[in-house]
Amino acid sequence: MKELAQEQDGAAARLDRRASGLSPVTRSDILEAALTLFATRGYYGTSLKDVAHAVGLRAPSLYNHIEAKSDLLVEIVFETLAHVGAELEEAIEAHVDLHDRLYAATYAYALRHAVHRREALVVNQDARHLPEHDLSRAQSLRRFQERRFRQIISDGVDSGLFDVPSAKLASFAIREMCVSAARWFHEGGDFTAEDVARNFATQAVRMVQGPIR
Amino acid sequence: MKELAQEQDGAAARLDRRASGLSPVTRSDILEAALTLFATRGYYGTSLKDVAHAVGLRAPSLYNHIEAKSDLLVEIVFETLAHVGAELEEAIEAHVDLHDRLYAATYAYALRHAVHRREALVVNQDARHLPEHDLSRAQSLRRFQERRFRQIISDGVDSGLFDVPSAKLASFAIREMCVSAARWFHEGGDFTAEDVARNFATQAVRMVQGPIR
Repeated sequence: MKELAQEQDGAAARLDRRASGLSPVTRSDILEAALTLFATRGYYGTSLKDVAHAVGLRAPSLYNHIEAKSDLLVEIVFETLAHVGAELEEAIEAHVDLHDRLYAATYAYALRHAVHRREALVVNQDARHLPEHDLSRAQSLRRFQERRFRQIISDGVDSGLFDVPSAKLASFAIREMCVSAARWFHEGGDFTAEDVARNFATQAVRMVQGPIR
Repeated sequence: MKELAQEQDGAAARLDRRASGLSPVTRSDILEAALTLFATRGYYGTSLKDVAHAVGLRAPSLYNHIEAKSDLLVEIVFETLAHVGAELEEAIEAHVDLHDRLYAATYAYALRHAVHRREALVVNQDARHLPEHDLSRAQSLRRFQERRFRQIISDGVDSGLFDVPSAKLASFAIREMCVSAARWFHEGGDFTAEDVARNFATQAVRMVQGPIR
């Protein structure tokens, strides 16, 4: 979280510039600030006043940009899910061989979660606070992504390439292994994001290989 | 989360009994109510008033039992970590063969997370809101658990039984796979908690087996 806090300091520094009249606050600045705050303090732990402060506005002025705190959460969650989904599809479409496909899908998914940690943390910790309608939409998008992994595994089982007791549980395990990178990965540690992605992709392929015991 | 909400309804029903004078509210009732509330709404999303309401007390009376909301979080987190740690040690100590040891450790860890979901959710989502000193104590307990998995894997690599590019990343993947069960597992679904534990234990052992690609 130290790094995330540093990004927050960076945001604070940027707005000194802004307060001195160099550039007006944009909606994207507000989303960026909200992303860091939600990721570090949680959605409930962040007030609109905190968001306003982080971009150098007074709270009432924020209402020129957004209607409610939940707008920020909705936008962050759906933008994140759209990006993750697009990268996953691209990885899947790039390969016909099912080993390669599973490897590529896991690689892309793990890399995304290691690199875009704030987004992933907000989706995983705070999506449950979305307004009802948005929540079910977000849940079905996430389920769709899990099913894409499951499909690769079932296809592999059907064609005799893979052997797992349950494609569903294997897909859960692979997805969650990747998602977890958002919680523990940090730049400058023992591994690069690419190391993690490579490693997890290898582990995913091993998981679906025939029974060993 | 539906099931968790049902447990909450159960708690509400129990306290009708209590309001009618059948039994006094105990500290353990309060912890139980806090556990369900934190797991469903998050620590920040739960007020002491919510906890008081759930056990049929008025908020001021809660202060006869606890000093602050954080007391509840501290107690839940450390009790959970102690239980998980003890089960993990027991599983590890029961086996000398490293395949068996990894299988048993993963089985115990996954089963615990599938069965005690509320506890696991609170530890994973809300431990970050612990007071500073408790937070670092909780983090080192969790790190210790991760290192126990890592040790089994390193021992296996050293003795030529296992082959992984990184024991650390393999231990992260296995731990997180197990922890995730707290988020998606539910009774009455396609799998029992034991199915999940068996499945994940098998997958863990596969992950550390020699290179396939």
